[in-house]
Amino acid sequence: MEDIIKINGYGGDFMNNPSVADLACSGMIGQIVTTRGTLHAVREMGKVTFVILRKRDGLLQCVLTEEDGIDVPVMASALEVTGVLQANEKAPGGCEIRLSGLRVLSHADRTLPVAIGKKRMNVTLEKNLDLRPVTLRNLRERAKFRIQMGICEGFRNYLTAQHFTEIHTPKLSARSAEGGANIFKLDYFHHPAVLAQSPQFYKQMMVGVFERVYEIGPVFRAEKHNTKRHLNEYTSLDFEMGFIDSFYDIMAMETGVLEAIMTNLKENYAPELAALDITSLPRTDNIPSVRFDRAKELVSEKYDRPIRNPYDLEPEEEALIGRYFKEEYDADFVFITHYPSKKRPFYAMDDPADETFTLSFDCLFRGLEITTGGQRIHQKDELLAKIEKKGMTSEGMEAYLLAFECGMPPHGGLGIGLERLTMQLIGEDNVRETTLFPRDMTRLTP
Amino acid sequence: MEDIIKINGYGGDFMNNPSVADLACSGMIGQIVTTRGTLHAVREMGKVTFVILRKRDGLLQCVLTEEDGIDVPVMASALEVTGVLQANEKAPGGCEIRLSGLRVLSHADRTLPVAIGKKRMNVTLEKNLDLRPVTLRNLRERAKFRIQMGICEGFRNYLTAQHFTEIHTPKLSARSAEGGANIFKLDYFHHPAVLAQSPQFYKQMMVGVFERVYEIGPVFRAEKHNTKRHLNEYTSLDFEMGFIDSFYDIMAMETGVLEAIMTNLKENYAPELAALDITSLPRTDNIPSVRFDRAKELVSEKYDRPIRNPYDLEPEEEALIGRYFKEEYDADFVFITHYPSKKRPFYAMDDPADETFTLSFDCLFRGLEITTGGQRIHQKDELLAKIEKKGMTSEGMEAYLLAFECGMPPHGGLGIGLERLTMQLIGEDNVRETTLFPRDMTRLTP
Repeated sequence: MEDIIKINGYGGDFMNNPSVADLACSGMIGQIVTTRGTLHAVREMGKVTFVILRKRDGLLQCVLTEEDGIDVPVMASALEVTGVLQANEKAPGGCEIRLSGLRVLSHADRTLPVAIGKKRMNVTLEKNLDLRPVTLRNLRERAKFRIQMGICEGFRNYLTAQHFTEIHTPKLSARSAEGGANIFKLDYFHHPAVLAQSPQFYKQMMVGVFERVYEIGPVFRAEKHNTKRHLNEYTSLDFEMGFIDSFYDIMAMETGVLEAIMTNLKENYAPELAALDITSLPRTDNIPSVRFDRAKELVSEKYDRPIRNPYDLEPEEEALIGRYFKEEYDADFVFITHYPSKKRPFYAMDDPADETFTLSFDCLFRGLEITTGGQRIHQKDELLAKIEKKGMTSEGMEAYLLAFECGMPPHGGLGIGLERLTMQLIGEDNVRETTLFPRDMTRLTP
Repeated sequence: MEDIIKINGYGGDFMNNPSVADLACSGMIGQIVTTRGTLHAVREMGKVTFVILRKRDGLLQCVLTEEDGIDVPVMASALEVTGVLQANEKAPGGCEIRLSGLRVLSHADRTLPVAIGKKRMNVTLEKNLDLRPVTLRNLRERAKFRIQMGICEGFRNYLTAQHFTEIHTPKLSARSAEGGANIFKLDYFHHPAVLAQSPQFYKQMMVGVFERVYEIGPVFRAEKHNTKRHLNEYTSLDFEMGFIDSFYDIMAMETGVLEAIMTNLKENYAPELAALDITSLPRTDNIPSVRFDRAKELVSEKYDRPIRNPYDLEPEEEALIGRYFKEEYDADFVFITHYPSKKRPFYAMDDPADETFTLSFDCLFRGLEITTGGQRIHQKDELLAKIEKKGMTSEGMEAYLLAFECGMPPHGGLGIGLERLTMQLIGEDNVRETTLFPRDMTRLTP
C-alpha cells in the first residue's frame, strides 16, 4: 500500500527555482547552478551572445559563445539553464550564468506582437490593453502591479497592527448602499439583485461587531463616464472604525496608512520603484487639511478662476488645489473637509454647526481624489430623519437599521481607490494604465 | 490662514481607546484609566454590579457599587468608562476597572432580539442569519471570523515569502473560465457579461507575467444546490505558479500554506481558538496522497460500500475517505490525486500514462473537499485539441490563447474555499455558519 499512498513525500521541488536575488546572495559564485525562466531578450555581441531570462524578480543574464554549440531557442520559451554562476556587476542582478546547458521546458508558437524587451513598448493604450497577457510581461508594466501589491500590504499591515479585523462582505445583494442609478442589476434565481457599489452598509454593521474593520475587494459602478479617472469595476481599500471623537480620527488613521504604504514601498520594492524611475516617494508628514469652501476660494483667488458651482469640485479645481498645496506647502496629499451635505450620501453626518455641510472629507493626491471618507450617523432616529430629508425610503434597509436600533458607537471610515492611488504614485495619466484588466463602458475583455 | 489650514494637526485620538490586552499590560494598575466599549452584559451580585464591556479583543469587567450613584445604561449602549485599573485574575483579561465615571456615547433603541451575552445563543441558523448584524456580536460568532482573518494572513504571508505576487482580477467579464450553465449573467452597457466563477483564466495568464501569483477574492456560482456545503458567492484563496515539475509541487506548496495557517492561528489567535473551544489544530505534517481510484477502492473495502459511480466522489464517499485516513494515519487532510478527465475542465492536463485521468488533485479536510488544483496544459496546440475533444469552442478565449501562443511555462495552481476551510477547522456542519453574510439560492439579505 505504501507505494500508492505517499505521506508528505510529494514535491518540495518548487524550491528548486531560485530567484535572481537568491542566486546573487547564494554564495554559489564559481559553482554550477540550475535555474528557470522565460527567454526575454537575446543580444548578439559578436562571438558572445547574451541570453536574457525573465524571472519573477528581474532579469538574469546568461552568456553563450559560438563554440558552445548551444542553439538559442525561440523568444518567450520557458527554459531551464545550467552553468557556472559568475559575478558581473554590469549584469542586472550583479551575477550571470556562463551557460553549459539549456533545456526548453515549453515553447512559444509565434513572435511576440509587441517588443516587450524594450523599456517602453511604444504602443497605444488600446493596444496595450488588448494584448494585456503579453504587454504585462514588459518589466515596467509588471512593476506597476508589484507596487500595487506593496500598497495593499502597507494598508493591511498598518491596520492589523491597529487591531482592525479583515472582513469579506458579499458583492451580490438585494439592494445597494448608496442607491441611485449607477448600479449593475442582475437576475438572482428569479429575484432582482445588484452588484455592490461599496461595502458601506456591511462595514458599518461590522463596526458594531469588531469595532474596527477593513476590506480590500472589488466594487462595481455602472457610471456612464468614460474618462481617464473612471473605471466601472475597481479595487477599493475600505476601513471603518468605531468610538471615534470626530472624522479627524479617520484622517489621522489614513495618514498612518499612507505613511506605512510609503515605508513598505521604500523598504521592500526598491527594484520596482527603480524600474518605474521613481526616485522619491510622496511626503506624508505634512498633509494639510482645509475646508471645502475655503479650498475653492484659495484656488479661485490665486489662479484667477471664478467659482462656478459652490457645491462640487470640478476635476480642474481638484488639480488646482493639488497645485496650490504643492506650491505653498510642498504637500503631495491634501484633505478637503466639510463637503456639502447635498453631495454626500444620507449616512454622512451633518456638521451640527452648519447642516449644509458634512463631517466628511476627500483626500486628494497630486490633485486627484483618491479617498472619500467621514463620520457616519450613529443614532437610528437621526438616520431615519436624514433618509426622509433626502426624499429616500428605508425599504430594504431593515438589517442595516437593526444594527442602529441595537446600538452603534460613533464611527466613520473611508474608501481608497487602489488603481487611482497607484496611478498618481507612478505618474500615469490614465487609471487604465494601473489596472491589471480594466473594465470601462466599452471594455469587458480581455 | 493657519487657523483654517491644519497640517497633520488633526486626530491621533484614535489611539485613545486601548484594547483589553493594552490595558492589562499597560503597567497602569492602580491608576485611573479611560476606555470605550459596548455594554455587553450586566451582572448584579447583591451590592456589586459588574458592567461588562465588549471591546475589539474581548470583554472588560467594570465594577460598580450601590454607593457610586452611577446608573447602568441600557444594554448595547456605547460607553466611555473611567476608573482605577485593578488586577483581578478572575476578570476576563486579568484586570478590571473600578468605575468612577461613565459617559454614554450612543444608545440602543430597543432590547436585543437575541441573548448575545450567552456562550451559545440558542437560535436557529435561519434566525442567526436574519439577525446577522446583531448575532455576530456574540463572542463565539465573532471569533469565527477572526479565525478566518488568521487563515487569510497565513495564506498571504507564506506565499509572499515564496515570492508570489498578489493580483486583483476582474469579476465582470465577457465570458467565463469554466463555461457551463452555472454562471450569473448581466447586462453591461447593453453587452452580455458574466460574473467570474473563478479567477482561473486570469491567474494562468499572469503566470506568464509574474511566475507566481495569488488572489483572495469573491467568486460567483449560480449552482442550483442548496446544501450545507454550497454557497452561491464565496471567498476563494487562489494561487498559480510556473516552472513546476509536476502537480506534486502544487500539493507541496499547499502543504506549506496549511502549515503556515495553523502556525499563525496558534501564535496569534489563541483567545479566538479558546472562545471556540478548539484545543488542538489539525496536523499538517502527515498529509497522505492517494489516487482517486484507489481511494474509492479503499473505502469500498473497509466500509463495505459498493462503488456506484467510478468517475465521481459522492459526498458520503468523501466523508468515508476522511474517516479512513483519520483511522489509519491519524491524518486530518488527504490529497486525492488523478481525478477522471471527464470531470475536470478542459485546461487540466491529462496524465500521459492514461488520458482518462488528469494530473490534478483535491484536498479533503476532515472528509470535505476544500481545494481543487492541478497542473494545467501549457502548450497551445494541446489546449486546442482538448477544447475540441470536450466539444467546446475557443470563441471568446482569444486573450487566454494569446498568452499560450506567446509562451507559457509549465504551471499549475489551486483554489481553496475560505468558508469551507473555516467550517471544518471550527467543526461546524453548515458552511453558512462560517460565512459573514451567506448567499444561497434563497438568501440575498441581509
